[in-house]
Amino acid sequence: MSEHAAIHDIAHLGGIELLTPEPERSLWYFRDVLGMEVVHAAGPSVYLRGYGDRAASTFKLTHADAPGVGCISWRAASAAALERRAAALMAAGLGEGWSNGDFGRGRSFRFRDPDGHSMALYYEELAYEAPTELRSALKNQPQRYTGRGVGVRRTDHLALMAHDVSANRRFAQELLGFQLREQVIFDDGRQEIGSWMSPNAIHHQLAYVADLDGGHGRLHHVSLWVDNREDVLRAADILTENGIFIEAGPSKHNNSQGFYLYSYEPGGNRVEIYSGSYLVLAPDWQPVIWNEQERGSGTYWGAPLPETFLKYATPTVAAKK
Amino acid sequence: MSEHAAIHDIAHLGGIELLTPEPERSLWYFRDVLGMEVVHAAGPSVYLRGYGDRAASTFKLTHADAPGVGCISWRAASAAALERRAAALMAAGLGEGWSNGDFGRGRSFRFRDPDGHSMALYYEELAYEAPTELRSALKNQPQRYTGRGVGVRRTDHLALMAHDVSANRRFAQELLGFQLREQVIFDDGRQEIGSWMSPNAIHHQLAYVADLDGGHGRLHHVSLWVDNREDVLRAADILTENGIFIEAGPSKHNNSQGFYLYSYEPGGNRVEIYSGSYLVLAPDWQPVIWNEQERGSGTYWGAPLPETFLKYATPTVAAKK
Amino acid sequence: MSEHAAIHDIAHLGGIELLTPEPERSLWYFRDVLGMEVVHAAGPSVYLRGYGDRAASTFKLTHADAPGVGCISWRAASAAALERRAAALMAAGLGEGWSNGDFGRGRSFRFRDPDGHSMALYYEELAYEAPTELRSALKNQPQRYTGRGVGVRRTDHLALMAHDVSANRRFAQELLGFQLREQVIFDDGRQEIGSWMSPNAIHHQLAYVADLDGGHGRLHHVSLWVDNREDVLRAADILTENGIFIEAGPSKHNNSQGFYLYSYEPGGNRVEIYSGSYLVLAPDWQPVIWNEQERGSGTYWGAPLPETFLKYATPTVAAKK
Amino acid sequence: MSEHAAIHDIAHLGGIELLTPEPERSLWYFRDVLGMEVVHAAGPSVYLRGYGDRAASTFKLTHADAPGVGCISWRAASAAALERRAAALMAAGLGEGWSNGDFGRGRSFRFRDPDGHSMALYYEELAYEAPTELRSALKNQPQRYTGRGVGVRRTDHLALMAHDVSANRRFAQELLGFQLREQVIFDDGRQEIGSWMSPNAIHHQLAYVADLDGGHGRLHHVSLWVDNREDVLRAADILTENGIFIEAGPSKHNNSQGFYLYSYEPGGNRVEIYSGSYLVLAPDWQPVIWNEQERGSGTYWGAPLPETFLKYATPTVAAKK
Repeated sequence: MSEHAAIHDIAHLGGIELLTPEPERSLWYFRDVLGMEVVHAAGPSVYLRGYGDRAASTFKLTHADAPGVGCISWRAASAAALERRAAALMAAGLGEGWSNGDFGRGRSFRFRDPDGHSMALYYEELAYEAPTELRSALKNQPQRYTGRGVGVRRTDHLALMAHDVSANRRFAQELLGFQLREQVIFDDGRQEIGSWMSPNAIHHQLAYVADLDGGHGRLHHVSLWVDNREDVLRAADILTENGIFIEAGPSKHNNSQGFYLYSYEPGGNRVEIYSGSYLVLAPDWQPVIWNEQERGSGTYWGAPLPETFLKYATPTVAAKK
Repeated sequence: MSEHAAIHDIAHLGGIELLTPEPERSLWYFRDVLGMEVVHAAGPSVYLRGYGDRAASTFKLTHADAPGVGCISWRAASAAALERRAAALMAAGLGEGWSNGDFGRGRSFRFRDPDGHSMALYYEELAYEAPTELRSALKNQPQRYTGRGVGVRRTDHLALMAHDVSANRRFAQELLGFQLREQVIFDDGRQEIGSWMSPNAIHHQLAYVADLDGGHGRLHHVSLWVDNREDVLRAADILTENGIFIEAGPSKHNNSQGFYLYSYEPGGNRVEIYSGSYLVLAPDWQPVIWNEQERGSGTYWGAPLPETFLKYATPTVAAKK
Repeated sequence: MSEHAAIHDIAHLGGIELLTPEPERSLWYFRDVLGMEVVHAAGPSVYLRGYGDRAASTFKLTHADAPGVGCISWRAASAAALERRAAALMAAGLGEGWSNGDFGRGRSFRFRDPDGHSMALYYEELAYEAPTELRSALKNQPQRYTGRGVGVRRTDHLALMAHDVSANRRFAQELLGFQLREQVIFDDGRQEIGSWMSPNAIHHQLAYVADLDGGHGRLHHVSLWVDNREDVLRAADILTENGIFIEAGPSKHNNSQGFYLYSYEPGGNRVEIYSGSYLVLAPDWQPVIWNEQERGSGTYWGAPLPETFLKYATPTVAAKK
Repeated sequence: MSEHAAIHDIAHLGGIELLTPEPERSLWYFRDVLGMEVVHAAGPSVYLRGYGDRAASTFKLTHADAPGVGCISWRAASAAALERRAAALMAAGLGEGWSNGDFGRGRSFRFRDPDGHSMALYYEELAYEAPTELRSALKNQPQRYTGRGVGVRRTDHLALMAHDVSANRRFAQELLGFQLREQVIFDDGRQEIGSWMSPNAIHHQLAYVADLDGGHGRLHHVSLWVDNREDVLRAADILTENGIFIEAGPSKHNNSQGFYLYSYEPGGNRVEIYSGSYLVLAPDWQPVIWNEQERGSGTYWGAPLPETFLKYATPTVAAKK
């Protein structure tokens, strides 16, 4: 399977399912503190959205025994692209078969990445139709900006832990057609610590970072977008006033140039409020590779990242077993 | 009464009473859209505050037949200063006598400015004690920043219409000890269009602008502070999404350098969301005076101010009669 | 030529050539006031870049008798895509043939849009290599942010005037594969006033707006990106202090949601400093269409756009003849 | 000497003299990186200003063997206040006598605080008159905002190390009439770690923090103001790109609510770029006192301050001897 055949077959990240052992408090965090909207509920799951998300829902919160990431879905660029990717994934032995799709989505193909994270591909999507009270004064904005809490605009990306970063990165390049944007590689090119990739102009919609604790299928963080750096600062004020633990930031990464703020939602998952970074439009983009010295603390202005940032993931390895 | 004797006798603007014929919708505007907190209610009045106001309340919303400004209160710098100013105002024939004070305030002296606006002076003030759910993570912040709506920090200033700007400006300088900061004077120094004054380092806490319609005791606008220009832009988004009419801005004035956003609250009064401007610390500050040409449109970047900005005040002249 | 065949063949806007009768003062505007870097000069032209532009140059300033736009170049997604598009343009009778390319670019195919604007397609591009003094502390940033003036990050888009918007919009969709993002259509669907399009996730990289003065090949504006709305406000301060005429803004459009600031550079061309807007990732995006009532003033918060915004373009019709 | 007698006798911080063993590189830092203007030079000193400073100069850079703070000057509120304070300081045994004043200032009274820092009091001050090329489009702005580098607006405050914080704090309250704003007091009220004070509405213009290394007369940091938090973030970008070491921030303190960014200028002194905080207008302000637990890391969002922040001061104790 050449990289070329897959390019442009995936349009964008479709949605993230987050698992939480504290569903009510997690819902409070995403709805009342971050300002997302609830659009649907079914069984153990609640479906949410950012005010700028075009799809009905991009974020699914599911009650579970332990925190972590559930199914990560990607939107294909066309019905044909969906078939092509499904066939390739099946051929690669990663496919799990078709389903009728989740809320707001048509026929979906389930698969797993080499590290075991659950993923799905779909093409048909329900565009959001706002109820009257959430209609925006902007015809090109799917939903009104409510001014409640942080006010995240859209689901932007996620970072997954992987036992073998290289294998999972190649999977995303070759089978999903993602473009490799940046890498952290230590030990003179021998140890791939992290890789940032994307199917579109957003700097990264998927990252794999090394899981050094022997876990599988774990989550480093999910990331929600706001438009300006000042919005991230305001988010830090709001999170602090709500008693939410801030692990790091607001500050600026060197790799990705992302302006970050990491907190733990009540269920235990790391959530980033995020702005800045840069778009990549070049078809021949050459990955930017950082070694130990260049990577440094991983931040631009010198702010240290805490030890937990490298170690903590959900679920914990004990919980996963 | 020399100007000198009064200097430093007034510490700061204490509060503004706003009259509204639409009390419920006005309350919605200030509480739900601007994010102020309700701290007290009595008779036709509701008492509000910004999250950074030290006093229990700085903003009083009172049901009335027509919009406009009620009593404007100023805090004296000490008990002795209160007595001095009361005596001077009484001697000037503007005093109306003492009362036991309004919610959150001790003994108060009522008076009127030459144009007839109702004012009060007091010294004793109830500092805000937040209930548990509104306590801030910051020990030096009287109340938590809730993240609801615009999130105005404090009541900053107000602008009053006056038939005779000069007479009212002299009153504020001589009897209240305010420092004159800026003036707009047309017709080769003969027509005082507006004067901006303050008892402290804030650029202006009181402005008088010419009432060309023959009215008396009218209000141009009240102004509420946010910390950053981006907060004003965000306020514009929120106001628009809530269907509130924006008369002008966000943009930047030339005089005062204020970064402004003017809307009409549902009761009809003009309300400014405001940031920027500059502090004045010089004891020998020389007023900055703008003539027709220098004043131009009244804005820094060239954005025009609408005709209504010069004409509309509350109550309308018809309603006042 | 179906739309489908062209999709993804163009990667992004490659560069804009701006014509100026005041080359020295225009250079001062772009280099000293906006903070762009000069990377090359040849004959009547100077080549510039924003600090975040990946290519060596994205902006060419050329001495000419009258202001206006010179050649607008687009980068193909691959060598094969370049051949495909060239063949299609030639077949459509719009091709003008191949050249060896301009500074920093390989073999280029010249053509004109139906309104007569000069365009070029190329694939090979020189990625910027910063000289020592302009190297960034960020390995993923092509050039250091110098902190000089406005500090524009990259060339973002341009808007062209066209006698027949529909014909030119169809050309861009069908022959360049651009996705139609938004339209302003008046008179019950009969009069296409403007159309906004893009070959990638950026909301629009090309717009056509109706030229009501009978001109051809004219420019409405070029647009340069900054990351935050506050950067646009700061740009307004800097432009004003440099005596540059600001035609409109900073404010927010309703269509595109762009946070805009329009000034005239010394050569007479309209230049936008721009942030905000939104990304489009949906492969099945449905254009947002605004009628007279919905379009209103063209702004979100109600700020009026001046008459000149609809009328002024470069060159003036008289100059063009 | 009661506190009362001194209140309002000092209007504001007049200027800071910073000592540097690297005068050329320090000048580059303040002029080219921070964007201050040079207004005068005499002997080993260069006089600078922020674009919003009303006085001709508020910042003096003096070549010396070691970094540290030179003379800190305060502006009296009147000629009479100057005499009153001079008499009181002389009576307290801290006076050093009168001089003709430094550049831009009239007759000055020199004295030392109990810890030995050199200070001066003056009343007459030269208001800045900008040369043509630095005249602002704003009549109320002393100087044009040039858009060069960080663009600091004004000299805001400084923090001094003191062997005995309590003694120096009492000196500032009683002899200078400063109002005590906040304190960090450990060990159940027995150990005064730091005190923040001001003669005006600015939260603090002078802080004393405990010098635990046995030094005297040392500097913790000088602080320069920008209007918005985004300006501080942009300053961090500029400092980093210029290879300046950032010790901490951008982030937000809990005490003072200051939005901070600390770097070391090439001479070795700690310099803060600063925004936010809050104004204090209450005549009966009660100091906010933080114990060990409340103070925590000294930051609001949880970002740690490095060890050096508590230890490093200029000159180093060795250099001072």
